Amino acid sequence: MNDALRIFAGHSNDPLAQEICRTIGIPLSPLEIARFSNDNLHVQVMANVRERDVFVVQSFTEPVSDHIMELMITLDALRSASARRVTAVIPYYSYARSDKKDAPRISITGRLVADMLRTAGADRVLTMDLHADQVHGFFSMPVDHLTAIPTIAEHFRQRYDISNMVAVATDAGGAKRVGRFSERLGIPMAIIDKRRVSDTQVKQGQVVGEVAGRDVVIFEDEISTGGTLVSSIHTLKDAGARSIHAGAVHGVLCGPAIDRLREAPIESIVVTNTVDIPAHKAFDKLTVLTVAPLFAAAIERIHSGESVGALFE
Amino acid sequence: MNDALRIFAGHSNDPLAQEICRTIGIPLSPLEIARFSNDNLHVQVMANVRERDVFVVQSFTEPVSDHIMELMITLDALRSASARRVTAVIPYYSYARSDKKDAPRISITGRLVADMLRTAGADRVLTMDLHADQVHGFFSMPVDHLTAIPTIAEHFRQRYDISNMVAVATDAGGAKRVGRFSERLGIPMAIIDKRRVSDTQVKQGQVVGEVAGRDVVIFEDEISTGGTLVSSIHTLKDAGARSIHAGAVHGVLCGPAIDRLREAPIESIVVTNTVDIPAHKAFDKLTVLTVAPLFAAAIERIHSGESVGALFE
Amino acid sequence: MNDALRIFAGHSNDPLAQEICRTIGIPLSPLEIARFSNDNLHVQVMANVRERDVFVVQSFTEPVSDHIMELMITLDALRSASARRVTAVIPYYSYARSDKKDAPRISITGRLVADMLRTAGADRVLTMDLHADQVHGFFSMPVDHLTAIPTIAEHFRQRYDISNMVAVATDAGGAKRVGRFSERLGIPMAIIDKRRVSDTQVKQGQVVGEVAGRDVVIFEDEISTGGTLVSSIHTLKDAGARSIHAGAVHGVLCGPAIDRLREAPIESIVVTNTVDIPAHKAFDKLTVLTVAPLFAAAIERIHSGESVGALFE
Amino acid sequence: MNDALRIFAGHSNDPLAQEICRTIGIPLSPLEIARFSNDNLHVQVMANVRERDVFVVQSFTEPVSDHIMELMITLDALRSASARRVTAVIPYYSYARSDKKDAPRISITGRLVADMLRTAGADRVLTMDLHADQVHGFFSMPVDHLTAIPTIAEHFRQRYDISNMVAVATDAGGAKRVGRFSERLGIPMAIIDKRRVSDTQVKQGQVVGEVAGRDVVIFEDEISTGGTLVSSIHTLKDAGARSIHAGAVHGVLCGPAIDRLREAPIESIVVTNTVDIPAHKAFDKLTVLTVAPLFAAAIERIHSGESVGALFE
Amino acid sequence: MNDALRIFAGHSNDPLAQEICRTIGIPLSPLEIARFSNDNLHVQVMANVRERDVFVVQSFTEPVSDHIMELMITLDALRSASARRVTAVIPYYSYARSDKKDAPRISITGRLVADMLRTAGADRVLTMDLHADQVHGFFSMPVDHLTAIPTIAEHFRQRYDISNMVAVATDAGGAKRVGRFSERLGIPMAIIDKRRVSDTQVKQGQVVGEVAGRDVVIFEDEISTGGTLVSSIHTLKDAGARSIHAGAVHGVLCGPAIDRLREAPIESIVVTNTVDIPAHKAFDKLTVLTVAPLFAAAIERIHSGESVGALFE
Amino acid sequence: MNDALRIFAGHSNDPLAQEICRTIGIPLSPLEIARFSNDNLHVQVMANVRERDVFVVQSFTEPVSDHIMELMITLDALRSASARRVTAVIPYYSYARSDKKDAPRISITGRLVADMLRTAGADRVLTMDLHADQVHGFFSMPVDHLTAIPTIAEHFRQRYDISNMVAVATDAGGAKRVGRFSERLGIPMAIIDKRRVSDTQVKQGQVVGEVAGRDVVIFEDEISTGGTLVSSIHTLKDAGARSIHAGAVHGVLCGPAIDRLREAPIESIVVTNTVDIPAHKAFDKLTVLTVAPLFAAAIERIHSGESVGALFE
Repeated sequence: MNDALRIFAGHSNDPLAQEICRTIGIPLSPLEIARFSNDNLHVQVMANVRERDVFVVQSFTEPVSDHIMELMITLDALRSASARRVTAVIPYYSYARSDKKDAPRISITGRLVADMLRTAGADRVLTMDLHADQVHGFFSMPVDHLTAIPTIAEHFRQRYDISNMVAVATDAGGAKRVGRFSERLGIPMAIIDKRRVSDTQVKQGQVVGEVAGRDVVIFEDEISTGGTLVSSIHTLKDAGARSIHAGAVHGVLCGPAIDRLREAPIESIVVTNTVDIPAHKAFDKLTVLTVAPLFAAAIERIHSGESVGALFE
Repeated sequence: MNDALRIFAGHSNDPLAQEICRTIGIPLSPLEIARFSNDNLHVQVMANVRERDVFVVQSFTEPVSDHIMELMITLDALRSASARRVTAVIPYYSYARSDKKDAPRISITGRLVADMLRTAGADRVLTMDLHADQVHGFFSMPVDHLTAIPTIAEHFRQRYDISNMVAVATDAGGAKRVGRFSERLGIPMAIIDKRRVSDTQVKQGQVVGEVAGRDVVIFEDEISTGGTLVSSIHTLKDAGARSIHAGAVHGVLCGPAIDRLREAPIESIVVTNTVDIPAHKAFDKLTVLTVAPLFAAAIERIHSGESVGALFE
Repeated sequence: MNDALRIFAGHSNDPLAQEICRTIGIPLSPLEIARFSNDNLHVQVMANVRERDVFVVQSFTEPVSDHIMELMITLDALRSASARRVTAVIPYYSYARSDKKDAPRISITGRLVADMLRTAGADRVLTMDLHADQVHGFFSMPVDHLTAIPTIAEHFRQRYDISNMVAVATDAGGAKRVGRFSERLGIPMAIIDKRRVSDTQVKQGQVVGEVAGRDVVIFEDEISTGGTLVSSIHTLKDAGARSIHAGAVHGVLCGPAIDRLREAPIESIVVTNTVDIPAHKAFDKLTVLTVAPLFAAAIERIHSGESVGALFE
Repeated sequence: MNDALRIFAGHSNDPLAQEICRTIGIPLSPLEIARFSNDNLHVQVMANVRERDVFVVQSFTEPVSDHIMELMITLDALRSASARRVTAVIPYYSYARSDKKDAPRISITGRLVADMLRTAGADRVLTMDLHADQVHGFFSMPVDHLTAIPTIAEHFRQRYDISNMVAVATDAGGAKRVGRFSERLGIPMAIIDKRRVSDTQVKQGQVVGEVAGRDVVIFEDEISTGGTLVSSIHTLKDAGARSIHAGAVHGVLCGPAIDRLREAPIESIVVTNTVDIPAHKAFDKLTVLTVAPLFAAAIERIHSGESVGALFE
Repeated sequence: MNDALRIFAGHSNDPLAQEICRTIGIPLSPLEIARFSNDNLHVQVMANVRERDVFVVQSFTEPVSDHIMELMITLDALRSASARRVTAVIPYYSYARSDKKDAPRISITGRLVADMLRTAGADRVLTMDLHADQVHGFFSMPVDHLTAIPTIAEHFRQRYDISNMVAVATDAGGAKRVGRFSERLGIPMAIIDKRRVSDTQVKQGQVVGEVAGRDVVIFEDEISTGGTLVSSIHTLKDAGARSIHAGAVHGVLCGPAIDRLREAPIESIVVTNTVDIPAHKAFDKLTVLTVAPLFAAAIERIHSGESVGALFE
Repeated sequence: MNDALRIFAGHSNDPLAQEICRTIGIPLSPLEIARFSNDNLHVQVMANVRERDVFVVQSFTEPVSDHIMELMITLDALRSASARRVTAVIPYYSYARSDKKDAPRISITGRLVADMLRTAGADRVLTMDLHADQVHGFFSMPVDHLTAIPTIAEHFRQRYDISNMVAVATDAGGAKRVGRFSERLGIPMAIIDKRRVSDTQVKQGQVVGEVAGRDVVIFEDEISTGGTLVSSIHTLKDAGARSIHAGAVHGVLCGPAIDRLREAPIESIVVTNTVDIPAHKAFDKLTVLTVAPLFAAAIERIHSGESVGALFE
């Protein structure tokens, strides 16, 4: 059966793709990705894929536009090379954050990219912890939507005394996600309610719920520059939090993130490897959990027609 | 210009459609909707619509399936009758609540119905306060998404002393909506965090945030049987709330809702007329605000090519 | 092979679905269909369908809109649950009667629903005796179109002396169907030609062909309120028919149908079980033939890639 | 307004296109249609059509495949030349006869060609007396479906004494059309019921209804080789018809038709000019009615947004 | 495996289809193609194709429109007969020559026909030596694009002394193809550069490159009337060519071609059998190479999921 | 009229967009393009576009992926902001070079991006000198395809004595383009025929045609790194060319291009401003011709419905 299964990967997260393949026990199939002198991307699939069940792993990490175009071109090449079925495996779907019209005349780019994936030839999508659950509905093809929340919750349960812990959302929009995380751990939750003080002043956070004297876990879907996280740490410290941890699925950790977090009054930060974190970004407070086993299991189940939902029961 | 504008309405909310037309100053165009003996619906458009700019008003109220089919058949009839542009005006889009996969092997019906509207011939959609902002992205055609939050907030500001008020969400998923509502009024917010106590016991609510001694406004997108609302009232009373009000955009008010709310320890309930509330359901604590002026203004602006977003600036 | 075959059923005709499954020798797979308090329908597929060949049985019987929405939501759930192929089995496709534009600005809803089935995810359709043969062409996916005419004809041949029989169509539009039925039995045919006498008077029937002293079988695709049937009986009696029987594929039998037919001067009525006829509707003159063996055979042949047309050779 | 209206025509029926243009009072716009040496067709639109409202007149007459390809290529050229709207005017849509699956593994080509018209760029279709009313539903774009039945009926009313006339359908499938024709004239109808006598013998016709001593009008949608017509004439003569006339919308009149009809015991034959009948085919018993005024009126109404249905009220 | 493989053929090139089947070792499956009296085409697939992998062989030869319609109708019949996959095998795709807009308001018919193939139900295309490589990109489904250039080059290498040979393109547009052909043989190339001398005079050719005293092979994708070929022969003779041969993939050879070439000062002409050349067109200087083995190998590889590109390595 | 016309521009070529607007006499409408910290692009259209005729200018220049994504997101924002018509103006469509399958299992990305433009909402495309004429056929929407060849030819005619000039293509694939250019100037042409000498050695060029003692103009569609150009210069010098000029439409001029060309034995290089050439890249031998007047005229004609082809007559 595995004979018919092929996994390829773009440039965005080779270590994760390699780990997924090792877990399944098949080699990563070769893809030649080049850049022409006029900056056009060029992809050649270096293995016969006729009638095969093909998966392409690509996270939408920096440079996002290049990684999206790489994926689109690869999908198109696979389809026209007569692959039987092509699944786009997108551990981090960055444009899920462009999921609504909160200003006039903007694009809901999370939907646009979903449509472009269809145009390029994706038959299905496998992804993880989309910014909002509703983004699932942007896709017109079947989507398997994994979550790393149990993995991260389990990490906290095993490492720390959670009896005095409270999970905190950095804004009202994240309340639902934190509710799910905190229910899993059986701990209470709180949210930071941010308000615009006046037209010229930035928003200020107010803690809704009990955090004084508590060990706090800030939980988010992604950490990018760390700006929100650091300002939340200060708000929580001011509100009397005893200690602060942070958990997030997607460790984008770009720009000043590493420097900021290294110096922030925070005990630990845990993310997963949906976004590749190169060695030079590592620091002692940062733990990176692997989601490769989850993706490997999902790919095997999709390939053989077993339930993927059963992975989370 | 208005010569080319025609408004039709299905059976779901005739009073609202009539009021929209009166506000614009044009008659509601006639539609003949019949039911054949085999229960098939039949719609005939009773006015020439060739090259006209046509709007059809239909809320997804009980019986929802009939009202959806009525709308689909009307859209199809209008398209094949050569209308230049057809806008589905759906004040209450009930299936916006089916917006994610929170159980295995279910349908994201909010997306499915959006696709069916496209199939039936809708060129655009005009709707109000979708259950989640992301549902906007389910539609493949332009959507104008109105909100009644300012209207309802203004009602509270004018009628009540809001200095001691706090806005409350009945669960974590509603935190964002309540955040927007409370920010508009400049009052604090709280949420009721519901947890499953054990596998056999139902969920129990815990108030996150300060409500003791406060005047509370529970804010939701819709009130249907009133079950959630009544249990939230009790949770809030237990938590020491001084008085309780409720606000919601869509007053579905079905089943035991009226009886429950009449007897509940609540000062006032305010909804809008996106769902038609017949006279026999009225009771003294219930206020129904009209959104007809908003819909009328939006229709006029869509028709004449002016910005709809500007309505909310 | 049957391992990969799954049959589900909506609420419209559970006995037929059960009988089809018994004939094939597999259990009916479970579907959970619920109705939310706001009247939204909710469907959960309760068995893994990944890579399975799935059939959903649903007749478009009263309440038609609910049964159509149930089917659409089920199809969408199956597709997004990664079924390999989904066949909508629609024994009675009520909207086949909306098959032409016989009035200005109406919808050809038979085509609209066919397009909606595609949108919802049906890969194929299996149906029976569509109101007109041409309705087959409304579908953009493969359709297997079964007929119960041989079954009903055989019933008459075995039960009655057909040597003096004539088959009658209740209007010119049904002539073709009756021609096929009467040719099968080797008996002559006649038609009732209905004319509008004046603008205010209803239409009056005139018998074209010989019925005086004959045993007559009125043959139709469906009987709903029985109004047409009863008025045809009188026309035929006036024209000297000796005895009268009626045959139809779809026994919708709604409203006053049962009472009317019980009292009408008719010897027997035979229909099939494409529409479920509950026990309380049964009466001595009514015979219900089962089409479950036909549907079961067709499903098995579709599943295994054998010719379905061969069933009728 | 007419400034923006352009009418083109393929090679199939130039006289009709010219007459339509004369009636409207605009010139026929030029099209250059060539055939390359490899038998490829080549079409060049010889007038600017940007933002124009364009109509292309093409009947599906012999050679049908060439005329269809001509139309497809012209539609494609017009679309890519930026016409605002393109209407395919198809007075005779020959493939309407391929409207059902009356044998296994055949194509419903009437639907296929409708889909191909959409692919080629037709925004709408204007046609006349499709073989079955249901064929209207094969098209996914708006269709205006004209009928010449009133024109032909009027011809008989004015020319002949219709008090003893009966209209006859040549088979059960034509009963509906003849019903409509006879109702318009207020005369009775009959049908010829054809049966297969045995597996080796051809079908034999039986008259259902009264024709003895009557003046008969055989009414059909099209006459091609005249074979059916001639055998029907003999059947009717045998049944005692006093005199026989024939009426049909589409005078395909191919192969031996002219010779057969010239010699047949028939008083008169009337058709329209949806199919061009060259001078050498004319003979004294044949009357050709023009439908150019109907098409001209329909085109003007489509162009200016007036009701086309009103033409037939 | 071959059990599931079926090959059908239209009327255009039966000998090639037969030879392909003989090579593979399966019989050509039967298709009944008829022409109705109104010139409509009718196709019936005479073998069960459910779940089969089906190929239809049809070259776009004269009469091209009929052969295209035959193919479209066959594809539609196969799809609706539930074939699992349908591949259109088009050895000569005549409309590839309509591949650009070299005049205003024309159709790029090569793209239009590609879209129509999709509409009619082709899942893939297998073709040979399209007029330009870019035409591959007109298709929205996977295309396997074979080439007979190696076959023809090999013919020259084996039959003639190529040490003094030069390959010539008859115009600048053919330079690329001739470059590929000449590189394969390791011989130099030249082109005939045609210029419009004045607005009234036809174009005149100028040889670019060395041909004096050389043995010349004119190489083209197709030869239709032979006009270009004959005028090129004269241009080359005038430029001092010692002897002249011609090679082309598609031997359309229509109209005066045979007479012209028989009399022209040319040593030999070699084409392939993508276009059927009936016996009466044969003459001593003409060699017809078979491409049946190539098509047979490609079909087998497509069917079994092996690389087709590997055929040309 | 111009009231309804709006032109926007992405980041790729602001000077060209500004010049187009100045020529037409309207301001460039504002677009806010931002980059989020996770590298997602964000576009906000800063002017009401409802019912407007909108053009977006974006060249596919480095960074190509970002510029493509910018354009896609802008198109999507414009469509959902209810623009009446959106034209993508792509002066340099870089992926036109990915126009064929010259290796197994690659993407024809020129087609893929054309499809993605459709998905994102482009109603039409306006572009210039696509790498091959056939690429026009990759688009499913109307394309106006401008050419700068007359502009560049005119430049040479006015600046230089062309009596001894010959135009040269750098490979066989460019012969057609050079043929068109040289015919316009009335000068002869030659091509450089490149061959692979052996498997390990690179290709070597051979001049086909007369260049010894001639003034040569190498003509190409684009110059990127200048590698091909420089090697062609040497080949031509070796073949005895007296002087060498170069002309190209798209001056990509990336990487070592400027340095290489500054030092190469070439008299002059002329390109257009489809690609923005910043001041620091300018050098004395380089002339940049503006195509802004051509684009401005085309936009005005598209907007007002006049023929664009007439611009080149």
